[in-house]
Amino acid sequence: MDVAQVLHMNGGKGENSCANNSLIQKKVIAMTKPIMEEALTNLYSSTSPSKLAIADLGCSSGPNTFLVTSEIIEVVDRICRNLNKEYPEYHVFLNDLPGNDFNAIFRSLPSFLVTLKTRIQTGAGKCFFTGVPGSFYSRLFPTNSLNFVYSSYSLMWLSQVPEGVENNKGNIYMACTSPPNVLKAYYEQFQRDFTTFLECRSKELVVGGRMVLTLLGRRSSNPADKECCYIWELMALALNEMVDEGIIEEEKLDSFNIAQYAPYPDEVRFTKEGSFKIDRLKVSKVYWNPYNTDKFGLLILNPSEVRKLGDGYGVAKYMRAVAEPLLVSHFGEQIIDEVFIRYQKIVADRMAKEETEFVNVTVSMTKRG
Amino acid sequence: MDVAQVLHMNGGKGENSCANNSLIQKKVIAMTKPIMEEALTNLYSSTSPSKLAIADLGCSSGPNTFLVTSEIIEVVDRICRNLNKEYPEYHVFLNDLPGNDFNAIFRSLPSFLVTLKTRIQTGAGKCFFTGVPGSFYSRLFPTNSLNFVYSSYSLMWLSQVPEGVENNKGNIYMACTSPPNVLKAYYEQFQRDFTTFLECRSKELVVGGRMVLTLLGRRSSNPADKECCYIWELMALALNEMVDEGIIEEEKLDSFNIAQYAPYPDEVRFTKEGSFKIDRLKVSKVYWNPYNTDKFGLLILNPSEVRKLGDGYGVAKYMRAVAEPLLVSHFGEQIIDEVFIRYQKIVADRMAKEETEFVNVTVSMTKRG
Repeated sequence: MDVAQVLHMNGGKGENSCANNSLIQKKVIAMTKPIMEEALTNLYSSTSPSKLAIADLGCSSGPNTFLVTSEIIEVVDRICRNLNKEYPEYHVFLNDLPGNDFNAIFRSLPSFLVTLKTRIQTGAGKCFFTGVPGSFYSRLFPTNSLNFVYSSYSLMWLSQVPEGVENNKGNIYMACTSPPNVLKAYYEQFQRDFTTFLECRSKELVVGGRMVLTLLGRRSSNPADKECCYIWELMALALNEMVDEGIIEEEKLDSFNIAQYAPYPDEVRFTKEGSFKIDRLKVSKVYWNPYNTDKFGLLILNPSEVRKLGDGYGVAKYMRAVAEPLLVSHFGEQIIDEVFIRYQKIVADRMAKEETEFVNVTVSMTKRG
Repeated sequence: MDVAQVLHMNGGKGENSCANNSLIQKKVIAMTKPIMEEALTNLYSSTSPSKLAIADLGCSSGPNTFLVTSEIIEVVDRICRNLNKEYPEYHVFLNDLPGNDFNAIFRSLPSFLVTLKTRIQTGAGKCFFTGVPGSFYSRLFPTNSLNFVYSSYSLMWLSQVPEGVENNKGNIYMACTSPPNVLKAYYEQFQRDFTTFLECRSKELVVGGRMVLTLLGRRSSNPADKECCYIWELMALALNEMVDEGIIEEEKLDSFNIAQYAPYPDEVRFTKEGSFKIDRLKVSKVYWNPYNTDKFGLLILNPSEVRKLGDGYGVAKYMRAVAEPLLVSHFGEQIIDEVFIRYQKIVADRMAKEETEFVNVTVSMTKRG
């Protein structure tokens, strides 16, 4: 399993993720919901598929795995009721890499179906769930077999660390001190991966099928901007401290880079792949400390309150869930606790001094005829 | 998880199963292959589906999980080549209960695909694999979504121990000493389950779709005949010895029954469910000691040679893989080693004195229009 796979697999929704992370996921889903509703309403205004094939790409495993699917089924159930259309059968494909814990998903399925049954009129007996192991940067489904594709917080993970970033010394990701060739390599890797993703999905979706993708992004055209790179820069600070103290070898740090890219909206909007019409593109933000916002992502605590709460513990904990497998596979297990003790202190310090937030890009698109 | 689920899940193909068991599986698949080939040839003589949706019901996890799918894909690949038809895309649905180890299946998928690629002209990139958790005694797939259903060594497992078998004292399964009401209860449970199975599959298969099922069966019209019950009767002997010695409570043994039924061919051929036309029904046998037969199930060792080899070890070992989870959930872990030490001795004794064999029933059917 390569670096990107490890990270993607644990990309914020896994069993190891903490309550904070779960809260962020729920916020993202709440923010995405109106866009998803619009996409599904438009889908049903033009067609009435008797079987609705839905794919959740990068579903991970954990308390939130069924959250999106559940929302989609409830929304379609309501649309059909309102439009007096026949309820479809749902064929749900939950995808992640082969290393994902599908056993955990499947074992929680029966109790999820009991809950779902109370929330829809379709009847949970019309919902069929399957697990699909594989990378979404390859074909996962037969031609013209899907009606609706969803992906939440997965597509910023690249298929691999870009090649040619050996001179990104002292950094572990794009940073303001990264040489231009590094920024270019990251950008090109994202373009290749995102194009491949669109090519695969364009074959798998039926004409008129919808796709809603949410991923980490940025508002600045500068790919090394603080808003997308800062959280990794602070981790690089912790690692560099440990290099200075002789705990980590400098060469080891120099060869470590994160396989992620947070795109600028235009990089998602304008791609070489022309099979999709963009219906909507929304940029939103989530504070690092999720207790800072209500369910619509709006500020509910003032900065001084956040300072009291924002001791970096929660942020360090969910970043640990994301980054630990990656750090372990490169540096070994023995340094991990120390990295995150330092990281937590650094994050706490910065959160007390400045506003810290993630930027999300959500894009809704339709497969052209 | 109920008793039947535990057994079905470990029904002879699981990770715990030993080489003997794997060998029996391979033999069964080799014996079933001509019937499967015929069914697929007939399917392709009437239709040319561009997408072939295949379900393996009760796939389990272990070295044999992909064996059947691999055979099916290779056969279709050859048929298409011979008939000069376009190669289809394969959508393979591997089903078992939610407790099955799907993680193990999914993690071995990439290496299986590498092997498959070398054996077919279709291109392994056209084979899409999914896991489907759930009981095959319920709907698992959307309406009209499958072309070919296969099930090997799973359908003799009932959905539950039949009700009303409390007076089957001293036995753990149907036996020559079982009261008539017990035999009736087992028969009726099988009829209910098999009818439910056919009803579900008849909705899921397209018209003209094929189904090939292999299960343990019997040639005798007597459901308590030795050929299907003997292997469990010998286990009951071991358990009764332990009751006599005060190691197991009598009441505990009296409340233990195996949720299995090995049908007589007519019980599979003539059912209330009328959606399927029976194309072929074959009864074959596999010796308890699989080294006794060649790959076509033919005798290759003479009885004296078998006596030398047939020390009961292999049989006890594969029966342990099948029965251990069930015995543990009823009697607890502490008695297990003792049960199988005794069982092995009993089996060895009988194998030295008589010919011991399993009977398989394979049925091939077509979904009517």
